[in-house]
Amino acid sequence: ANIVLLPGDGIGPEVVNEARLVLDAVAKLFGHSFSYSTHLLGGCAIDATGTAMPDATLKACQAADAVLLGAVGGPKWDDPQAKVRPEQGLLAIRKGLGLYANLRPVKAIPSLAKLSPLKPERVAGVDFIVIRELTGGLYFGQPKGRSTTPEGGEQAVDTLVYTDVEIRRIVRLAFELARNRRKLVTSIDKANVLESSRLWRKIAMEVGKEFPDVKLEHQLVDSAAMRLVTHAAQFDVIVTENMFGDILTDEAAVLAGSLGLLPSASLGAGKLGLYEPIHGSAPDIAGKGIANPTGTILSAAMLLRHSLGLEAEARAIEAAVSAAIDEGIHTGDLGAAKPVNTTQMGDAVRA
Amino acid sequence: ANIVLLPGDGIGPEVVNEARLVLDAVAKLFGHSFSYSTHLLGGCAIDATGTAMPDATLKACQAADAVLLGAVGGPKWDDPQAKVRPEQGLLAIRKGLGLYANLRPVKAIPSLAKLSPLKPERVAGVDFIVIRELTGGLYFGQPKGRSTTPEGGEQAVDTLVYTDVEIRRIVRLAFELARNRRKLVTSIDKANVLESSRLWRKIAMEVGKEFPDVKLEHQLVDSAAMRLVTHAAQFDVIVTENMFGDILTDEAAVLAGSLGLLPSASLGAGKLGLYEPIHGSAPDIAGKGIANPTGTILSAAMLLRHSLGLEAEARAIEAAVSAAIDEGIHTGDLGAAKPVNTTQMGDAVRA
Ligand SMILES: CC(C)[C@H](C(=O)O)[C@@H](O)C(=O)O
Ligand SMILES: CC(C)[C@H](C(=O)O)[C@@H](O)C(=O)O
Repeated sequence: ANIVLLPGDGIGPEVVNEARLVLDAVAKLFGHSFSYSTHLLGGCAIDATGTAMPDATLKACQAADAVLLGAVGGPKWDDPQAKVRPEQGLLAIRKGLGLYANLRPVKAIPSLAKLSPLKPERVAGVDFIVIRELTGGLYFGQPKGRSTTPEGGEQAVDTLVYTDVEIRRIVRLAFELARNRRKLVTSIDKANVLESSRLWRKIAMEVGKEFPDVKLEHQLVDSAAMRLVTHAAQFDVIVTENMFGDILTDEAAVLAGSLGLLPSASLGAGKLGLYEPIHGSAPDIAGKGIANPTGTILSAAMLLRHSLGLEAEARAIEAAVSAAIDEGIHTGDLGAAKPVNTTQMGDAVRA
Repeated sequence: ANIVLLPGDGIGPEVVNEARLVLDAVAKLFGHSFSYSTHLLGGCAIDATGTAMPDATLKACQAADAVLLGAVGGPKWDDPQAKVRPEQGLLAIRKGLGLYANLRPVKAIPSLAKLSPLKPERVAGVDFIVIRELTGGLYFGQPKGRSTTPEGGEQAVDTLVYTDVEIRRIVRLAFELARNRRKLVTSIDKANVLESSRLWRKIAMEVGKEFPDVKLEHQLVDSAAMRLVTHAAQFDVIVTENMFGDILTDEAAVLAGSLGLLPSASLGAGKLGLYEPIHGSAPDIAGKGIANPTGTILSAAMLLRHSLGLEAEARAIEAAVSAAIDEGIHTGDLGAAKPVNTTQMGDAVRA
């Protein structure tokens, strides 16, 4: 299999390197052969080429079986008014590869409950996955731009638009995943205010009829934002549109208190997917060799599962990560008294 | 002063009645005279008149000094696809009265820390106020509607639009409030993706220059959703647009674990304001006389402060509520072993 590595900025190269070594260990153990090519995305791409996603990067990704990304961004490219920004690389690669579904599993790890901002009884049993629509809605809708008001002032507009096709494919994915889990889909919208949410809810109900074995519930985004804090263990599969998903996935990510452990997958119509840890580029600790590589290693496991169809191999990585964590092998972000470094964490998983 | 009461649905009438009795007690104590008129809004208005906000209600509110609202909605009117829905009353009254600023204070009460979903050290010191823009953005932007796609499918669109004038007035209010607090404004946007957020941020920086004594920071909405859970005590005044505000105010509301205590104010250009507890109509406990009236009583305090300019009177109510709660006079929602009922809670405050 042909894997593109996009190390990106900050701690990206360090964590991607550890994940790659884990993939090599899996390849050896299970008798596979993975080939890698490394390309530019984000701030490093801006510095080298003037654009956040060079054509060569997109072409390489399109030709690959899967893409593993570290993180993009940093203070150097931080001005939100700048014409060229690292996150444009992320948005362009999602759109360019047609990756319309972002999957973010969140699972509380009992041995790490002390890290959670929530009381133990609120985080116990948390085990859900958020499916966020990734190529529609406010992010890409047209018109999007600045104009002059009749009074000579300024006005800015973004457009939240969804078609039935865009909604159906993502909701269907949520139901398919729920089938192999606890069989509950929570579709999150703002149907009491937004026209797009009313269409979302209608399509969700239609798709629900195709899956009589899975329960469908609807929740308004404001009350979902509450329930994530108060009763997160009630969720199984959450599905929502792009902007709501951006907010709720990040809110969800801190519940378990171990951001550095969380992986993500972005999928499209075919097998090709983009895998990345949910943490950022952490410029403050970049180059120190102390970043937690676990989120990227678990992203590599999702890569094996979703793009290469290697379920046993994916589970082997997940089991190795759990074992290492339960043994107390923790990087500094996990609150260890004697933290291990990036390489030691990776070594422990591979062992 | 002339106060319009909009009891609304569910527990609305019960809690508004208690707050009115508190206002009467304040009037007597401080030698004021308040006159009240009661009008329909929400589900009860739909039942009586076929519309969620009858003209008579809007006219009465426009002529009033302040409006005190209970809650609207309930299972009877719950179908989001219905043409006439209770929350249309809320949206119409906000727009009709030009109430562009929603204020939601959130303060942790040490004696109620056990109710918080957060660990004690995470909720300690939480004391912030969220200013949500209330009449712009996705809620009202045009175009908003359904159409047919070229492929014969369905498409729905909402429009997120802001003008410099809309942004400036709300951000300015945030700075004015911060001046009398800890002098920190956190402006929340999604400037790395949305054009409207880039304008928001630009205007926020301009307004910031008018208030050199107040610190301005910008935060992306996704990371703000995290920080509310992990470091809420860092916030002083948060200001954000309508949809983000809807989500973040609700997320913020559950942090302290006492939803029933939280008030809100919706303000416009003049003195007229609409005051309401942030909880819903709680149809499951309606009519039982066990609802917590504190959120509405504290909303009445905000009414005295913001619409009638009666600061001492507002503080008297707030002090009375704090005293009652610290004495352990708690309704059932506060987890009391021996809960008091709605009237007893109100009586305690008045005493
Ligand atoms: C960097 C930004 C454009 C991006 C998004 O909003 O999608 C990020 O927050 C994410 O969630 O991957
Ligand atoms: C009922 C609904 C229209 C309303 C809103 O979204 O503004 C509510 O959630 C609120 O926050 O007051």
